[in-house]
Amino acid sequence: MPAALEQYLDLLQQKKAFANLATVMADGTPQVTPVWFDYEGGMIRVNTAKGRVKARTLKVGAPVALAIMDPDNPYRYVQIRGRVERVTAAGAAEAHIDALANKYLGKDKYPFRGPGEVRLLCEIRPVSISGQS
Amino acid sequence: MPAALEQYLDLLQQKKAFANLATVMADGTPQVTPVWFDYEGGMIRVNTAKGRVKARTLKVGAPVALAIMDPDNPYRYVQIRGRVERVTAAGAAEAHIDALANKYLGKDKYPFRGPGEVRLLCEIRPVSISGQS
Repeated sequence: MPAALEQYLDLLQQKKAFANLATVMADGTPQVTPVWFDYEGGMIRVNTAKGRVKARTLKVGAPVALAIMDPDNPYRYVQIRGRVERVTAAGAAEAHIDALANKYLGKDKYPFRGPGEVRLLCEIRPVSISGQS
Repeated sequence: MPAALEQYLDLLQQKKAFANLATVMADGTPQVTPVWFDYEGGMIRVNTAKGRVKARTLKVGAPVALAIMDPDNPYRYVQIRGRVERVTAAGAAEAHIDALANKYLGKDKYPFRGPGEVRLLCEIRPVSISGQS
């Protein structure tokens, strides 16, 4: 774990903070969406569904950035820049969206699955960290 | 004003919502920061200081994206993609940072000016709007 992340562990692991996840589209323009995430084994993990804009930009190796604001204090936040290291479908991605539903909604199963939806687990390795605390 | 923005006017004009502003750096990687903003004359307006990373990426013509979450409901947000249409220094930028301090802090003057700091007012024209309401 980059040392600078230590002071934000509450945002990464305890609070129900959202990550504003920025990616770059094929035409070079940015896109940003609030997403659920968790932090495990040194990786920021997000979950999307095949076919979405986010899924198309979250390829292995893609550069991404996240801003995570403290829900209790908007003037405290951490900014993370990194790269997508791994994208996994099937069982691990299904288990992960359920884990996120548990974190954010207190539910055992993610309740918003669409018919035929294929979930993708995207693991992001943090490269540079900054923030305001 | 793009029609789709109408249903988010409370986020743009009334609530003290932050914008998570994404830009693309010279190396093609994204960057995202929570910022103050206002919405005036059809433009999203943000304010930065000369010399900051954000100021270097917010050039006229640069593509940007914003995600603005409802502070009262994180599952409601608007996403805006657009381009920087104008960057202004001097008087207008100074007046604008004071207006933002008034909106967000209830203060007449922005209290965090650094010595010799040159403020920049960046006006962003919304091109595409999406969201979750």
